Amino acid sequence: MSAAADRLNLTSGHLNAGRKRSSSSVSLKAVEKPFKVTVIGSGNWGTTIAKVVAENCKGYPEVFAPLVQMWVFEEDINGEKLTEIINTRHQNVKYLPGITLPDNLVANPDLIDSVKDVDIIVFNIPHQFLPRICSQLKGHVNPHVRAISCLKGFEVGAKGVQLLSSYITEELGIQCGALSGANIATEVAQEHWSETTVAYHIPKDFRGEGKDVDHKVLKALFHRPYFHVSVIEDVAGISICGALKNVVALGCGFVEGLGWGNNASAAIQRVGLGEIIRFGQMFFPESREETYYQESAGVADLITTCAGGRNVKVARLMATSGKDAWECEKELLNGQSAQGLITCKEVHEWLETCGSVEDFPLFEAVYQIVYNNYPMKNLPDMIEELDLHED
Amino acid sequence: MSAAADRLNLTSGHLNAGRKRSSSSVSLKAVEKPFKVTVIGSGNWGTTIAKVVAENCKGYPEVFAPLVQMWVFEEDINGEKLTEIINTRHQNVKYLPGITLPDNLVANPDLIDSVKDVDIIVFNIPHQFLPRICSQLKGHVNPHVRAISCLKGFEVGAKGVQLLSSYITEELGIQCGALSGANIATEVAQEHWSETTVAYHIPKDFRGEGKDVDHKVLKALFHRPYFHVSVIEDVAGISICGALKNVVALGCGFVEGLGWGNNASAAIQRVGLGEIIRFGQMFFPESREETYYQESAGVADLITTCAGGRNVKVARLMATSGKDAWECEKELLNGQSAQGLITCKEVHEWLETCGSVEDFPLFEAVYQIVYNNYPMKNLPDMIEELDLHED
Repeated sequence: MSAAADRLNLTSGHLNAGRKRSSSSVSLKAVEKPFKVTVIGSGNWGTTIAKVVAENCKGYPEVFAPLVQMWVFEEDINGEKLTEIINTRHQNVKYLPGITLPDNLVANPDLIDSVKDVDIIVFNIPHQFLPRICSQLKGHVNPHVRAISCLKGFEVGAKGVQLLSSYITEELGIQCGALSGANIATEVAQEHWSETTVAYHIPKDFRGEGKDVDHKVLKALFHRPYFHVSVIEDVAGISICGALKNVVALGCGFVEGLGWGNNASAAIQRVGLGEIIRFGQMFFPESREETYYQESAGVADLITTCAGGRNVKVARLMATSGKDAWECEKELLNGQSAQGLITCKEVHEWLETCGSVEDFPLFEAVYQIVYNNYPMKNLPDMIEELDLHED
Repeated sequence: MSAAADRLNLTSGHLNAGRKRSSSSVSLKAVEKPFKVTVIGSGNWGTTIAKVVAENCKGYPEVFAPLVQMWVFEEDINGEKLTEIINTRHQNVKYLPGITLPDNLVANPDLIDSVKDVDIIVFNIPHQFLPRICSQLKGHVNPHVRAISCLKGFEVGAKGVQLLSSYITEELGIQCGALSGANIATEVAQEHWSETTVAYHIPKDFRGEGKDVDHKVLKALFHRPYFHVSVIEDVAGISICGALKNVVALGCGFVEGLGWGNNASAAIQRVGLGEIIRFGQMFFPESREETYYQESAGVADLITTCAGGRNVKVARLMATSGKDAWECEKELLNGQSAQGLITCKEVHEWLETCGSVEDFPLFEAVYQIVYNNYPMKNLPDMIEELDLHED
């Protein structure tokens, strides 16, 4: 057993101190050539994940190349370049102020250069930048490179619903998994304990243990004492929940704003979880029902999102002020968007194309409230038929 | 179709106004002899459920006898009897002040008299009074009487885990189901929308539709426009969740008190849901996994309970003050108890008897923190092995 593997087992042993079982121990083979990792994206969540990854790459030098690059969209901060600030002061002063980054994390403003000779790419940019980034990367990425997308959601178009990981695979010809969970970025950056889910499907051209990325490698790459990782196969399941939770959060904001209390918010989350599962079964039959209620990317992320965040806030203000969604968004989010407002429309249009609108009464109710001014106090009646146990 | 059934269908049609499907419509046969209903218990939740039941019994006179009795533990309120106040002013001034009760709800201080010639008994008293109530009722209840228990939890003894509904069946020889859900009583009493789950297993001596209690009758008895009911078979599933959620809520209080934020609380709820499911599968193999994540009595009640309430408050104060559970309980609850403190001990002792402690790391961690002063900051490491996806 290699020194790196020893160390990893030791760490896991420590994590499980005082307990007999040690299912979390990862017996990792040293790899032929340590994997070189790059994180694309340097926003709040991008920088946080880059910190996590860099800490692990430093910790397991026989598995990962210690130096981790982070592609940064260059910005001028009071006359200094953001990349220079990150590389000298080890802080992303703009997007993750107050958090010290590991010194083996190197900011690079050159996208193509940042992925040179890389083995693993972690995508963590806003959804809307993905097409441009992929078109720039095209032709510069070896087909043996493996990727993990930390982007939330999916693309809904005329052709149907596409996972963002599938989009990356299609555009760049590389295998791509996903990372999603109940992860408010700032809390993870401050190393408050949380959990996440990584989903990755081993590709047909897998080169073998010790030579290629597998679940153990991904666990080693993302797991930290404060960031507990579960690695599964179901990329679709975790991506679906990551997108649709924002629609459910709007529903929670409505009933909160109406002053209906905790029972009503919990009811919306229950109904929402049911519709998320149904959506997965209908459009991604390969996704597993268990993912939604067992994984951090499922029920836990739903709970965190519905406990607060942009979508809840905008919906709550709609309820209390009577203003429309766009006014509330403008008033509260300072130019940022509440993703649920976009997603509920995309989902409505897609479900209409499929003739399946009535199978998703909560998603439809949220859409009608946001876009057609349906009275939100009718929400309970609008979603009543989700009850599957009726005669 | 009877007038009552017509009316019920009309109500459901109204609930579904504007939507094509109407799966919530209940086509209820008029019954040979309307069911006479009594609610035993008149606390906060007891009075609330009695209000719900009385409203429905008044609304469907061909199905239910309009007059509903509520057994009240007689108390003197400033020189007046509580039953007299309820019967003249239609308000339970002590336990549900400010809520007007239907005038067909009649308070009765005589337990035996309250169940005379009754067809359906709804139990809604504090857990600890159940043995005494049952021993008083013994011999006074016809075996054809059907019951629903609104009590939360189960009895853990040397013989194992027993459902309270099973206890009622054993003591009184009557079929008993359960009602449980994300139901903060005051919110339901104020007619803020919420959902609940009723579970009832049709007994072998079922006398036939129109003559005996079935799922449609129970739906009609409990469903209100503001209180949406789902009727299922799985009595064990909803009872288990109703008991164990309080242990999970203690865990949420700990991480909240430690200042770890929303991610951590969601993680505790995810892990807790997993252990609740496992507990059900291990000790009540007839319970269905879906109950836990599809029903109000499952995931929704867990979410509501973990969003606040006694157990969260006590655990939070333990974390912030360093005081022990009993001091915190005394300081916060004014003589009432945080049920999770009792349940986690009962569960620990039962699991120890079975040699299954290690299968429930969160329940065990909560127990050890409360009873043996384990440092709560070790919680993440203590529960790490629930991760089922590890190699």
